[in-house]
Amino acid sequence: MVRTAILTVSDRGAAGQREDTSVQEIRRLLQSGPFVEVDYQVVPDEQAMIRAKIRLWCDQDTVDLVLTTGGTGLAMRDRTPEATREVIEREVPGLAELMRAHGVASNPLAALSRGLVGVRRKTLVVNLPGSPAGARESLEAIVKVLPHAVDTILGEQRSASEAWHN
Amino acid sequence: MVRTAILTVSDRGAAGQREDTSVQEIRRLLQSGPFVEVDYQVVPDEQAMIRAKIRLWCDQDTVDLVLTTGGTGLAMRDRTPEATREVIEREVPGLAELMRAHGVASNPLAALSRGLVGVRRKTLVVNLPGSPAGARESLEAIVKVLPHAVDTILGEQRSASEAWHN
Amino acid sequence: MVRTAILTVSDRGAAGQREDTSVQEIRRLLQSGPFVEVDYQVVPDEQAMIRAKIRLWCDQDTVDLVLTTGGTGLAMRDRTPEATREVIEREVPGLAELMRAHGVASNPLAALSRGLVGVRRKTLVVNLPGSPAGARESLEAIVKVLPHAVDTILGEQRSASEAWHN
Repeated sequence: MVRTAILTVSDRGAAGQREDTSVQEIRRLLQSGPFVEVDYQVVPDEQAMIRAKIRLWCDQDTVDLVLTTGGTGLAMRDRTPEATREVIEREVPGLAELMRAHGVASNPLAALSRGLVGVRRKTLVVNLPGSPAGARESLEAIVKVLPHAVDTILGEQRSASEAWHN
Repeated sequence: MVRTAILTVSDRGAAGQREDTSVQEIRRLLQSGPFVEVDYQVVPDEQAMIRAKIRLWCDQDTVDLVLTTGGTGLAMRDRTPEATREVIEREVPGLAELMRAHGVASNPLAALSRGLVGVRRKTLVVNLPGSPAGARESLEAIVKVLPHAVDTILGEQRSASEAWHN
Repeated sequence: MVRTAILTVSDRGAAGQREDTSVQEIRRLLQSGPFVEVDYQVVPDEQAMIRAKIRLWCDQDTVDLVLTTGGTGLAMRDRTPEATREVIEREVPGLAELMRAHGVASNPLAALSRGLVGVRRKTLVVNLPGSPAGARESLEAIVKVLPHAVDTILGEQRSASEAWHN
């Protein structure tokens, strides 16, 4: 099972002024695969708080996958990718590209998501957009690849590049 | 209206040895949307000059969008993306990806454009290729999204990720 | 002719425990264009060794193109992109995007290749995946553009952006 933690990044969500419908979309998609939700938190769009939460999860050895939702756009307070970049050790650009390419096919605004994907220690971190539709479409694009990605990070699988078509 | 400044980066252009046909293509496309040209300059392929000009425009609070053309290729003096990276605070990789994906569909050489997109303060900076066809095809791919992007940066719109499909 | 050096990055390959079938795929593809192989080495997945080898080739003025294969995935020892980033001076993201987009069309796992492309001095460096199929499909996506890219770096061609559709 892929131990998954979800971080909703939203000023209004953290203030209790917005129902978190994005996490519901994420949970629905996770049911299609070998994922188990081990934590869920809501933080405001504060770079230091986002960074601290991701880092804590990655360094605990209890979370294989961190999914963030929110803070990937162009508004002045959208800083989730910057927070993520500060803590990841290796970037996985292809997953971010795939999410955007999939989204753009139905809505050109998907190109404005600045979401980043990367690895810290043995945890994969994925930035999803904040809207329910954006989060769902982005996660749909990559959800089937995530278990393999996590297995590779954990060393339970030949590396992804070796497994490609073999 | 999106207050737009255009920067042509070209050694020959700055020396008066090349007619700037790329800016004409850019102007034609800008007429299709809510853009107003507020400045236009030509500089040689000097990283420090490109950087200084972009920074000045971004820090004046009079320009919402900077479009550069030229200096995105592989020639030794092509340094526009490097100059841009030095001044942007937040990268917008999806717009650069979209420009290249659109260009590659008609010409594989579009993959060689190293153009970067990012935000400094409240200004969006977009690197377009230097050829008239390259500048036109790249700008075509994103021109409809640019007003929304600028509105989001200015805070006049819900964030792009929230607006996605809502 | 494009003077090409191939670097296989593989712990098992360097230990003589794995036949290098990926290099055979690469060689077959190179026969379709103006490439001449000038060197071939195998190193383990050690970031410092990968970095040193790429840098040496780039700084010798005898190699126009470095193709690496291996070490682009998510396994803990996959560090080829990190080694490459340490030595390149200018990134060429469009070639990495094109390789992944091409690969994803036949296999979603291609999104997990973290391969980087960039230029150091007058040499182009391309990270290919380690599996024979991954290396072949990635190189197929860009092989026709590589001679033009190298010519542009060497100054024997108008810049790629100027040549686009002209």
